Amino acid sequence: MTLYVNLAELLSARIEQGLYRPGDRLPSVRALSVEHGVSLSTVQQAYRLLEDNGLAAPRPKSGYFVPTDRSLPALPAVSRPAQRPVEISQWEQVIELIRSVPSKDVVQLGRGMPDVDSPTLKPLLRSLAQLSRRQDMPGLYYDTISGTLALREQIARLMLDSGCSLGPADLVVTTGCHEALSTSIRAVCQPGDIVAVDSPSFHGAMQTLKGLGMKALEIPTDPLTGISLEALELALEQWPIKLIQITPSCNNPLGYIMPEARKKALLTLAQRFDVAILEDDVYGDLAYTYPRPRTIKSFDEDGRVLLCSSFSKTLAPGLRIGWVAPGRYLERVLHMKYISTGCTATQPQLAIADFIEAGHYQPHLRRMRSQYQRSRDQMSDWVTRYFPPGTRASRPQGGFMLWIELPESFDTLRLNRALLGQGVQIAVGSIFSASGKYRNCLRMNFAARPTAEIEAAVRKVGETAIRLLAEAASDG
Amino acid sequence: MTLYVNLAELLSARIEQGLYRPGDRLPSVRALSVEHGVSLSTVQQAYRLLEDNGLAAPRPKSGYFVPTDRSLPALPAVSRPAQRPVEISQWEQVIELIRSVPSKDVVQLGRGMPDVDSPTLKPLLRSLAQLSRRQDMPGLYYDTISGTLALREQIARLMLDSGCSLGPADLVVTTGCHEALSTSIRAVCQPGDIVAVDSPSFHGAMQTLKGLGMKALEIPTDPLTGISLEALELALEQWPIKLIQITPSCNNPLGYIMPEARKKALLTLAQRFDVAILEDDVYGDLAYTYPRPRTIKSFDEDGRVLLCSSFSKTLAPGLRIGWVAPGRYLERVLHMKYISTGCTATQPQLAIADFIEAGHYQPHLRRMRSQYQRSRDQMSDWVTRYFPPGTRASRPQGGFMLWIELPESFDTLRLNRALLGQGVQIAVGSIFSASGKYRNCLRMNFAARPTAEIEAAVRKVGETAIRLLAEAASDG
Repeated sequence: MTLYVNLAELLSARIEQGLYRPGDRLPSVRALSVEHGVSLSTVQQAYRLLEDNGLAAPRPKSGYFVPTDRSLPALPAVSRPAQRPVEISQWEQVIELIRSVPSKDVVQLGRGMPDVDSPTLKPLLRSLAQLSRRQDMPGLYYDTISGTLALREQIARLMLDSGCSLGPADLVVTTGCHEALSTSIRAVCQPGDIVAVDSPSFHGAMQTLKGLGMKALEIPTDPLTGISLEALELALEQWPIKLIQITPSCNNPLGYIMPEARKKALLTLAQRFDVAILEDDVYGDLAYTYPRPRTIKSFDEDGRVLLCSSFSKTLAPGLRIGWVAPGRYLERVLHMKYISTGCTATQPQLAIADFIEAGHYQPHLRRMRSQYQRSRDQMSDWVTRYFPPGTRASRPQGGFMLWIELPESFDTLRLNRALLGQGVQIAVGSIFSASGKYRNCLRMNFAARPTAEIEAAVRKVGETAIRLLAEAASDG
Repeated sequence: MTLYVNLAELLSARIEQGLYRPGDRLPSVRALSVEHGVSLSTVQQAYRLLEDNGLAAPRPKSGYFVPTDRSLPALPAVSRPAQRPVEISQWEQVIELIRSVPSKDVVQLGRGMPDVDSPTLKPLLRSLAQLSRRQDMPGLYYDTISGTLALREQIARLMLDSGCSLGPADLVVTTGCHEALSTSIRAVCQPGDIVAVDSPSFHGAMQTLKGLGMKALEIPTDPLTGISLEALELALEQWPIKLIQITPSCNNPLGYIMPEARKKALLTLAQRFDVAILEDDVYGDLAYTYPRPRTIKSFDEDGRVLLCSSFSKTLAPGLRIGWVAPGRYLERVLHMKYISTGCTATQPQLAIADFIEAGHYQPHLRRMRSQYQRSRDQMSDWVTRYFPPGTRASRPQGGFMLWIELPESFDTLRLNRALLGQGVQIAVGSIFSASGKYRNCLRMNFAARPTAEIEAAVRKVGETAIRLLAEAASDG
């Protein structure tokens, strides 16, 4: 089922290794079909995946070439986390990141903040202001436990784009995606349970597992196609895993979109071992390709997928409006939501419902998607230009996060400390691992429109890294 | 230390039993001092407590009399819950209550909704609207984990009124009091732990214990003076209690204010057995007397009290802004808050900070306090007039909830079902007990200004109760 993915991985490895260089013609579809004993359409699918990832460009009637327009940093290798359940650490690093107060003096490349400066958000602010002037003051009343019906109706409509046919009754509005994640995890797991996660993985989800007393089992993950199904299958055979928690569409921090066939295969695996899946789709609507990728939830027939999302990345995080489609865990999620916040604030729910109903959501998304894609290209160029030779970087297919891998001995905690004095903040790699791996990695936000100030900040990151590497070399 | 409380209880029992009737002169201070071998000031303190509870009225130079202006229903007896730790039930009844959507066709006497119709709230709505029009759009950004500094500064100032000298760094803003409660409980307890609670007790706190896998140990509670310290001491000797969770000021559902001496004694007990106290103060600012009662937290010297509160009862619940002063549990509460909602919505925090800073909070409180006190008297009169003979009722000293006790065999679940068809909803008593006690009790909200419509609704409750009692008698 994943023949084309294997072929794409093989070709991308050859490109990374320099076997094919920028401008080179890649093997023809026919030649590859013969060489690997696969069908023509499989080769074509593989090329489309490479194209999506910026590794191949078609030229009419001439086949595929390695793009010349920019030389991209090589991709990070497939991750190799410790393959046993671990207690989660790294809270100290996480709180250092989230405690930082936004300031004009610091360029914050570390946090998961979208660009909220777009004029396409204006109607949302207008709605919020109007709601405060309404005679019936809806914003002052308790909402119902499931969330405002008007918003759940709009979310159900949006979810059709990812292949999900759900009704408002299948949804629970939450206070941001954080509440969606924590209520979902508590709905499925007990303290001590083992949860399989992609790796690197969103630090918020990891700290939730920690706070609830669960153990994380990090699974090797490919920076183009996501969690390794082979490694996951082995883990499911070996450990009593209760839940698989992943971000398959526009992954945070790696930016990949797991191919549809692999999403289906993952679901089949979960069915075979009878485990639940927590699918974090918070960046899913920000895929650069249209239509947006399907969710695993859209293939779910027995309600084992809990889909968690929010408007924090697509609209604005300060509103704290998320949701969960909890499948068979609905009643339990409701209880967990009740004890977590009682209900979610009413006014932002109504404002977002207005915004979507009036047709403002899709134009806003279109604008943000193309802005983020352009910013990604710009950020990748800067990394190529300013970072140490040998730096590897992800090739995001959506969202606004870049994952960067420096030489193995490098320590980004030291880098971050050196940068804070220079007015730049990054997210250190170790918070994306349960056991503090990825110390040589960092995540940078490219949501804002590129400016000279941001370029200067990225340059500082790169040059500081070069300096620290040189110091380490002279020490050694 | 609680001599005056004992004396007040004795006198109130004599009044309840009809030994002194409305208009009767009560024994003189000197006579009681001799009779009970206590100081004059102890008797005076006892009379002040009776006065606060509407059981005694001073006449200049003539001593104390039983008030004649209205005949109050008798007080409920001291509760007698099962004195062993139990798994908590009643979720089905709770969700029935909180799922109910506000509707013009139903008079909702069941929910903990304040009156948000007061003109004194207008500046808050203006603030919310203005924030949406600000160029820098603060409402769209992530807040820091502890909450907006401007709001924490204002909360710290407000808390001086309850005797607490804390700084902004001692406070964590939460998404409603629910999040304050659940983060606090999780900061102190592990699943399986035993938590001592007053009884009857707020259903939200009880369901939080249930959802987090803790057991509740209900302690007998006096409807005038709160949790029985004697019973609590016995329980602390007998069981490995981790946390005492109470609502000592303007208790929900009973409305009492625990006398200051008893608050201090409770803290001493907690110190002796080295357990933490979760003090729910969400109705504390709505005490009818001014200055408002001191909190247990205000006497706390070793950081063992976690004070939880919110603006849901004083301003409006739809804003979902609460806070916790977690004492020595600060770091752990921060982690629990991070995994619960990440951070709290920014805009309502800023709006409330504006509202308090501009001096609107205290005038609003004054207005609400006196409105609620008048509504309490009206509601008590209606209960006397329309409810079955022998009905007992609490005598709230703050807040806007009345607790009503019907004959022991009565079932308020049946009453609620009969009422829903008539457009009235109440909160059934069983949700205020871990084990479903208080089936013969109900809680009614008197926040709204009394109207003919509300009188008709209360009358329906009373008459339906009379009808059900008559049916039961004829069945038997």
